[in-house]
Amino acid sequence: MIRERHLLGPGPSNPYPEATSALAQPLLGHLDPEFLRIMDDTCEMLRTVWGTTNSRTLPLSATGSAGMEAAFVNTVHPGDVVVVAVNGLFGQRMTDVAARCGAEVVAVEHEWGHPVDVDRVLAAHPAPAIVAAVHAETSTGVRSDVAALGAALRAQGSEALLLVDAVTSIGGIEVRADDWGVDVAYAGTQKCLGVAPGLAPFTIGERAFERRVEEPRSWYLDLGMLGGYVGEAGVQGGQRTYHHTAPTAMVASLHAGLARVLDEGLDAVWARHRAAGEALQAGLQDMGLELFAAEGSRLPQLTTVKVPDGVDPAAVRRELLERHGIEIGAGAGAYAASVWRIGLMGRNARPDTVVLVLAALREVLGRG
Amino acid sequence: MIRERHLLGPGPSNPYPEATSALAQPLLGHLDPEFLRIMDDTCEMLRTVWGTTNSRTLPLSATGSAGMEAAFVNTVHPGDVVVVAVNGLFGQRMTDVAARCGAEVVAVEHEWGHPVDVDRVLAAHPAPAIVAAVHAETSTGVRSDVAALGAALRAQGSEALLLVDAVTSIGGIEVRADDWGVDVAYAGTQKCLGVAPGLAPFTIGERAFERRVEEPRSWYLDLGMLGGYVGEAGVQGGQRTYHHTAPTAMVASLHAGLARVLDEGLDAVWARHRAAGEALQAGLQDMGLELFAAEGSRLPQLTTVKVPDGVDPAAVRRELLERHGIEIGAGAGAYAASVWRIGLMGRNARPDTVVLVLAALREVLGRG
Repeated sequence: MIRERHLLGPGPSNPYPEATSALAQPLLGHLDPEFLRIMDDTCEMLRTVWGTTNSRTLPLSATGSAGMEAAFVNTVHPGDVVVVAVNGLFGQRMTDVAARCGAEVVAVEHEWGHPVDVDRVLAAHPAPAIVAAVHAETSTGVRSDVAALGAALRAQGSEALLLVDAVTSIGGIEVRADDWGVDVAYAGTQKCLGVAPGLAPFTIGERAFERRVEEPRSWYLDLGMLGGYVGEAGVQGGQRTYHHTAPTAMVASLHAGLARVLDEGLDAVWARHRAAGEALQAGLQDMGLELFAAEGSRLPQLTTVKVPDGVDPAAVRRELLERHGIEIGAGAGAYAASVWRIGLMGRNARPDTVVLVLAALREVLGRG
Repeated sequence: MIRERHLLGPGPSNPYPEATSALAQPLLGHLDPEFLRIMDDTCEMLRTVWGTTNSRTLPLSATGSAGMEAAFVNTVHPGDVVVVAVNGLFGQRMTDVAARCGAEVVAVEHEWGHPVDVDRVLAAHPAPAIVAAVHAETSTGVRSDVAALGAALRAQGSEALLLVDAVTSIGGIEVRADDWGVDVAYAGTQKCLGVAPGLAPFTIGERAFERRVEEPRSWYLDLGMLGGYVGEAGVQGGQRTYHHTAPTAMVASLHAGLARVLDEGLDAVWARHRAAGEALQAGLQDMGLELFAAEGSRLPQLTTVKVPDGVDPAAVRRELLERHGIEIGAGAGAYAASVWRIGLMGRNARPDTVVLVLAALREVLGRG
């Protein structure tokens, strides 16, 4: 029996139909001219989605977490000071990943559910090599102001590279890497881009690439080597160097998903996510539920809501899944049992999904 | 227009139809009970394919090359002596990856096209921490005797861990990790297992896991952390800990591919690969072509053949691709222009594919 789910947790989301169909097309080899065209198109569409002209913009052959690892492993020289804004699980993870790369990590801790405080991040160290922050914290549903962080770094005359986690933001809310002064950023395919998990869209600017680690600790994620096959190779039109076998089915699927997103238009996609998220958040509050993320910093694509007193959070999730085929997420970290996470990402950012999840939750909670 | 290819290079191969269909099934979340069942089944089927009872047997969320990285990054402590048998590109790559993990690498160089010399490998160092070798060298089409290497290490009373690359062997020729004394091994999905590229089947035994690096340089490939979600977690039936978002579509596809392989039966699958490879190699020699790999060590699933004098190797490959939709591979490294690589892997290890590629090559070479 085939199970069909409404994937309304923190990701993966239900892929766009175009992305699913592409997975099942006849497979191409990773050096086939036809596949290289698809790869180059994919990189070009990723540039549009990232808001960048970086030649080194590519899908890494692993999930979003490997994007985080690639970002640090290619830019952290042992002993480098890395300031990490921590306002959730993924900021925490950055401190672990950076430390394994030999960084001297300066963590700027925030209360979960609140956005990054730009002033505190800037004051944390006089001359960091890297400042890192999460744009959309998947653990808390909070948006931080990366544009302001980038502007403040420039105003300060900082030499620090700005490294950004955009796993849950890309394709859902505005991302403008070049305008914001982002030097390195990574994302995932399985959230607002509406593609299955398995690839990490990645971009790195010239300044960061020049300061990169020549022989990073990871061979697999070595951007200097990867660039011979993809990204800059496509832009330069030169000879391709084999590095590893690209996951061709997944890349074809990302290609189809990006084409769908850009066909709709980024402004329209962002507006659709905003409308769906606002409707969901209003509906939850109408039901008497309380939102977790600080007002003014709530992500439309990922809503965190407090579990009401006396309710078994796991039982509600299980009933939603078994009765309605709806997956929502538990909270993260210390909030595992006190928060739910409801995602309206990619294909699911639409009115029928909003009314569905509200109605189902109302029923299961007995608030009908 | 959809291009259909006969993928008869060094991989990817054409996936089994069951594996392709599974890619396009409705997506499941990585914490869905239904998906966890699929993941556990996948790990269990991988144990059968590996010939192991290792609880830590799992598909890593990246391609085969990341499997190599995971093998070294989790087992090499800085300063460890790692003896690497190098008889092709992937043995070479092992020396690079091991060195990045801080190993003192002792490379035992062999002439390409020849199998690993067990005596030379054993004599290379009196007490290495790890001995590493490639079972089926994708760059040369050579099979090395891992069973003999494992037996010799045991006979010597060596404490060294045996680390094996089985990317091109698994699902195509006999692999018996436990019987052979293999401690750590990795593979790819896109060769004889008949699944698209994107995952690295991996196994590690108790002895190697106990000697592992507690906090490896890679967070993404940290087996201690991964084990909380997959592999041992499935065996122990305990609580799952979120690590990263598993590529659920790819895992579902691997599940379907493995089910197909085990339904046919490993002995039958190996026999099918052997028959196809022998028929191809005989046919190529009948055509007056010379094989590259040493006689007695030729892989059935990947045949290397010398480019005849006066023939433009790239032009032949291009004509096969454009005229017949057949992809074969160029040679690797120094043999890029003097060798072709023809794979008959997974679905393609069958008589109709043999006659097709022989007839097409005969036509293009004008040896009709």
